[in-house]
Amino acid sequence: MTAWIVAVGSELLTPFHVDTNSLVITERLNAIGCRVTRKLVVGDDAVELSRVLAGAVGEVDLVVCTGGLGPTADDVTRDALAGALGLPLDADEEVARAIRARFARRGVPMPEINMRQALVPRGAIVLQNEHGTAPGLWLDRPPTRFLLLPGPAREMTPLLERAVATHVASLSDGTRLVRRVVKVAGRPESDVDARAQPVYARWASQDVPIETTILASPGLVELHLTAREGQGQDAAAALDAAVGELRRALGASVFSDDRRSLEEVVGALLGSTRQTLAVAESCTGGLLTSRLTDVPGSSAYLNRSAVCYSNLAKIEWLSVPEALIAEHGAVSEPVARAMAEGVRAAAGADLGLAVTGIAGPGGGSAEKPVGTVAIAVVAGRREHVETFHFAGGRAQVKEQATRAGLNLLRQFLLDTVRPSD
Amino acid sequence: MTAWIVAVGSELLTPFHVDTNSLVITERLNAIGCRVTRKLVVGDDAVELSRVLAGAVGEVDLVVCTGGLGPTADDVTRDALAGALGLPLDADEEVARAIRARFARRGVPMPEINMRQALVPRGAIVLQNEHGTAPGLWLDRPPTRFLLLPGPAREMTPLLERAVATHVASLSDGTRLVRRVVKVAGRPESDVDARAQPVYARWASQDVPIETTILASPGLVELHLTAREGQGQDAAAALDAAVGELRRALGASVFSDDRRSLEEVVGALLGSTRQTLAVAESCTGGLLTSRLTDVPGSSAYLNRSAVCYSNLAKIEWLSVPEALIAEHGAVSEPVARAMAEGVRAAAGADLGLAVTGIAGPGGGSAEKPVGTVAIAVVAGRREHVETFHFAGGRAQVKEQATRAGLNLLRQFLLDTVRPSD
Repeated sequence: MTAWIVAVGSELLTPFHVDTNSLVITERLNAIGCRVTRKLVVGDDAVELSRVLAGAVGEVDLVVCTGGLGPTADDVTRDALAGALGLPLDADEEVARAIRARFARRGVPMPEINMRQALVPRGAIVLQNEHGTAPGLWLDRPPTRFLLLPGPAREMTPLLERAVATHVASLSDGTRLVRRVVKVAGRPESDVDARAQPVYARWASQDVPIETTILASPGLVELHLTAREGQGQDAAAALDAAVGELRRALGASVFSDDRRSLEEVVGALLGSTRQTLAVAESCTGGLLTSRLTDVPGSSAYLNRSAVCYSNLAKIEWLSVPEALIAEHGAVSEPVARAMAEGVRAAAGADLGLAVTGIAGPGGGSAEKPVGTVAIAVVAGRREHVETFHFAGGRAQVKEQATRAGLNLLRQFLLDTVRPSD
Repeated sequence: MTAWIVAVGSELLTPFHVDTNSLVITERLNAIGCRVTRKLVVGDDAVELSRVLAGAVGEVDLVVCTGGLGPTADDVTRDALAGALGLPLDADEEVARAIRARFARRGVPMPEINMRQALVPRGAIVLQNEHGTAPGLWLDRPPTRFLLLPGPAREMTPLLERAVATHVASLSDGTRLVRRVVKVAGRPESDVDARAQPVYARWASQDVPIETTILASPGLVELHLTAREGQGQDAAAALDAAVGELRRALGASVFSDDRRSLEEVVGALLGSTRQTLAVAESCTGGLLTSRLTDVPGSSAYLNRSAVCYSNLAKIEWLSVPEALIAEHGAVSEPVARAMAEGVRAAAGADLGLAVTGIAGPGGGSAEKPVGTVAIAVVAGRREHVETFHFAGGRAQVKEQATRAGLNLLRQFLLDTVRPSD
């Protein structure tokens, strides 16, 4: 089964907005085995939209359309669909009553234009919208079905769920796509690819073929594995085995196969081992702490954190010896180690994590160019200090240094938890 | 002049990826007066892509296509265009030489498959790619022209610039779209809309009509003003006047009309008045400091920052009296004020900024629900303390509290700089 997703709205044709509804819709359709073969964005233009919808008939099994169902003259999706298929628009009395009741409840007089939302292409089924006035529509006209959903995500998502369960799922052949996402930190994409390639080359010809996509962003590589379930084939089991093979090939650099972020994994490790953490940041400028505190409940293990750009701050809050900075420079392994131990001691925490580096664009030198970052983790007499060299501008260096810091902490914690790892 | 933008790549049809190249392309095309009327995403499927490209002929003036120009069998854009228009593919000797030279320079043997990149639909002009091996292509076949660009943004953007200047701009009728973005902090969207509506309602019927779009995200509202220039009409002057009207209607809550972010505006104010800042965060968890340090050169005015979740951290690093926390609670105006003054004094900075609140999901109470945030700015004997109530989950509260903190600091600085404001 195949689908097109059509997003309607002139704002989606400006340089400022991308359609994100289609990601949610794709995930839901994939889960019932429906493959998205085309996505389109059209403005609030009945002629253009009508052309797109008419062009879908016979080309694809399902069209999911979002937006353009509101009450104003800009909302053209109903008219465009009726026009494309040559169907008359009838006023639906039940929808009209619901819209009038909504206004009455709020004690607001109803502008007559709202009655446009009660218009329904003949043969379409109305999908009640609990979160807004614009109802969805389902038009079951083989060979091509149309599902019309409102644009705002909080109205779209529940209607999508209901419509897929009630109307769409039964059209699918029962196979569904199952996905795993294997997340890797601390290895460049080319290295991950070189190690994973021999593994996933074998999967394509298995009983349950597995497709692999590799996605890289600064400091993070994701491997997306997809298999199709059905006819007694166990896609989940095949994917579990595949994830195991990747973990063996990539070792401890794999930090998640369950969609969790690096900070969630680190938070869970700290929580389960009942250890507390203190952080000292220089070049990451608070980003590392912000990531840690994105996790609900992080205040249980994150005691405190200092962003110390100035040497004086490092000396006063983190007890870094002035002579150490003078001797090695603020961006150096000895200073990173002293910062980590200083913040740990000040906080009375179990662990200290420190990052010091040159985020750029200024501050670099021949010896220590922009992107040079020293990271230290300390816990009692255990410690790990490492220097990294990151490419890219200020934002990329901050991001990579943040991920490297979280990953170093994760690996440090794993050594503690499982010394044999 | 009208355009379609076609993004090619199977990964863009998964739930994990949106096409963002089209935003950059739209901006560039709008600047030469070209209107984008449709956007499409197609997988690495020569048949499907060929159908889309053939369907564009005669429907639109220009098709800009990104992706699918690499060397692998998955890269189908060249074949699809040739197939759609019935053109043979010729090997371009110059491109072939450049590809061979690239591999020779790196001392790597060239897999023969790379020669696919030298194939050119007959009549197309090759656009050299300085940042990768896949060249762009320009096919000038009225009524519909095709511009093929590589997918990676860092290769796509410079090729786009050159191709638009060299080949596309001359096709446009000379009118161009001019844009201003007015950014507003500290007012809800409905309030901005109520104040701005009477102003921009007048613009639609002016000599140079101005279109307005309102975009809201947590703690930030943007008004995008667009006017079309040409035939002696001065869109820039009309937009300058319009921005002035909006500034009068919205007062000091307008913080930028030149694309600058809140942290850039705050940084410039601190820099130009040669004042230094120290920050104490609780519920924003480092996000506010991270925003400040996103600005290059911020280490000149940001002395240091503390993220103090625990009461002990507030007492030790920020000298907040224990009794004050006991009496008012950690989330309170007196504690926010003490945190701001404490961090300012510790750092010897001119200004102190502090945020304390309940980001959720836990920690709320009937009296102080999740979203309650107290923010303080102090400078010598001047101070401002305010309590906010933000809606949404943890991420939204962090974001809104961060923006409110930066905005409060901005307004505090403006009072100093221009006491009559």
